[in-house]
Amino acid sequence: MITRSELQQLRSLRDKRHREALGLYAVEGEKIVGELLAAGHEFEAIYATPAWGGRVTRPITEADMARASHFPTPSAVLAVARLRRTDLPAGALARGLTLALDGVQDPGNVGTILRVADWFAVDRVLLSPACADLHSAKVIQASMGSFARVPAFVAPLAAALREAGAPVYGCALAGTDVHQLPALRDAVIVIGSEGRGLSAEVTPALTGVVTIPRRGGAESLNAAVAAAIVCDHLRRPR
Amino acid sequence: MITRSELQQLRSLRDKRHREALGLYAVEGEKIVGELLAAGHEFEAIYATPAWGGRVTRPITEADMARASHFPTPSAVLAVARLRRTDLPAGALARGLTLALDGVQDPGNVGTILRVADWFAVDRVLLSPACADLHSAKVIQASMGSFARVPAFVAPLAAALREAGAPVYGCALAGTDVHQLPALRDAVIVIGSEGRGLSAEVTPALTGVVTIPRRGGAESLNAAVAAAIVCDHLRRPR
Repeated sequence: MITRSELQQLRSLRDKRHREALGLYAVEGEKIVGELLAAGHEFEAIYATPAWGGRVTRPITEADMARASHFPTPSAVLAVARLRRTDLPAGALARGLTLALDGVQDPGNVGTILRVADWFAVDRVLLSPACADLHSAKVIQASMGSFARVPAFVAPLAAALREAGAPVYGCALAGTDVHQLPALRDAVIVIGSEGRGLSAEVTPALTGVVTIPRRGGAESLNAAVAAAIVCDHLRRPR
Repeated sequence: MITRSELQQLRSLRDKRHREALGLYAVEGEKIVGELLAAGHEFEAIYATPAWGGRVTRPITEADMARASHFPTPSAVLAVARLRRTDLPAGALARGLTLALDGVQDPGNVGTILRVADWFAVDRVLLSPACADLHSAKVIQASMGSFARVPAFVAPLAAALREAGAPVYGCALAGTDVHQLPALRDAVIVIGSEGRGLSAEVTPALTGVVTIPRRGGAESLNAAVAAAIVCDHLRRPR
């Protein structure tokens, strides 16, 4: 039997402040929890209704799951994991490919970018503190499990980029055509926010600007779409 | 003063059945309504609170807007337009670039694909009847105005593709590397559904399969991301 205070704690994990205070976050959905269990991911607790076929530590009724779930249509399982935030190691940006998110606020975009990073074997994703929270339910859901595979860090972006030790390309409407980008083994690609693009603090830290040529009428491309097109170019065989 | 039955009609436009029965749909948000007005788009009615600076036919209080709006955070304007569905013209797929959506059900993905199609000057988007409804609030919002610029049609997909008169490439996990795709002036690119990929009915109508090479761990790419990468390749100068 789930206690009222337990249910309240699960509900409170919808909120970033409570996640940080408790040091916990929730992962929901049969597919994603199943994948993470198969990959050896550790959970503090696994709440599941009888419809879930996997490991359970706390059986829960469908009615209580509907109360605990962060989604309007709850799944059969909600797993609670410990928040583990590691600081960006010094010098990390000098090696490999980094996607840096400059205030990407839509959690669906942040989750999709983690999935893109995973697909293209991007080495890490760096988020400015203004981005959607990595451990929100919508980011985790949109990442389709990739949030558990891609090293992700939150850090003040401008300072980190100034000391990157690798070329730093911002994505914007006017810059080098992405198709002309040289092969870059080490690079940081900065994706601006949905509404305002690259921030004034980050712009001086760029060593170049890259653009995806527009052929038609749209004003801009979705942040995850832009990130994916640049990654596809950097990862294609030359 | 907005009548109760008027408010009820606006609320009913959240539902596809009611949109079809009334022959109307709603467009919400200052930016998108402003853009459409500037482009000469015709509306049956423009409901707006005093915060809206543009044309209004029906002033509405904030409280009534909150009741009428299809979103949890209503904007200052909700415009009602007439549904105009045109049938896919015979032979249309033979010319230019078509994105065909095979059961793409997430309205955010359908809207983002319209925006991608607009950016890359794709000639048309063809949706199978199982796709998210073109005139739902979330599709319109995610398209960022592109839904009004990109010719879009709904039609049974397999039959249309069999008579395409142009190469028909499905996006899937195993196929021709997208980077090896020849320059194609006329082509149909088919994007499968989020959960199941390409449908069994559509597969026999394909003349080829294209794939975006995976370098890392993700199981798949988001539908809009995949569409964008293929469009970027087909539209790049050779």
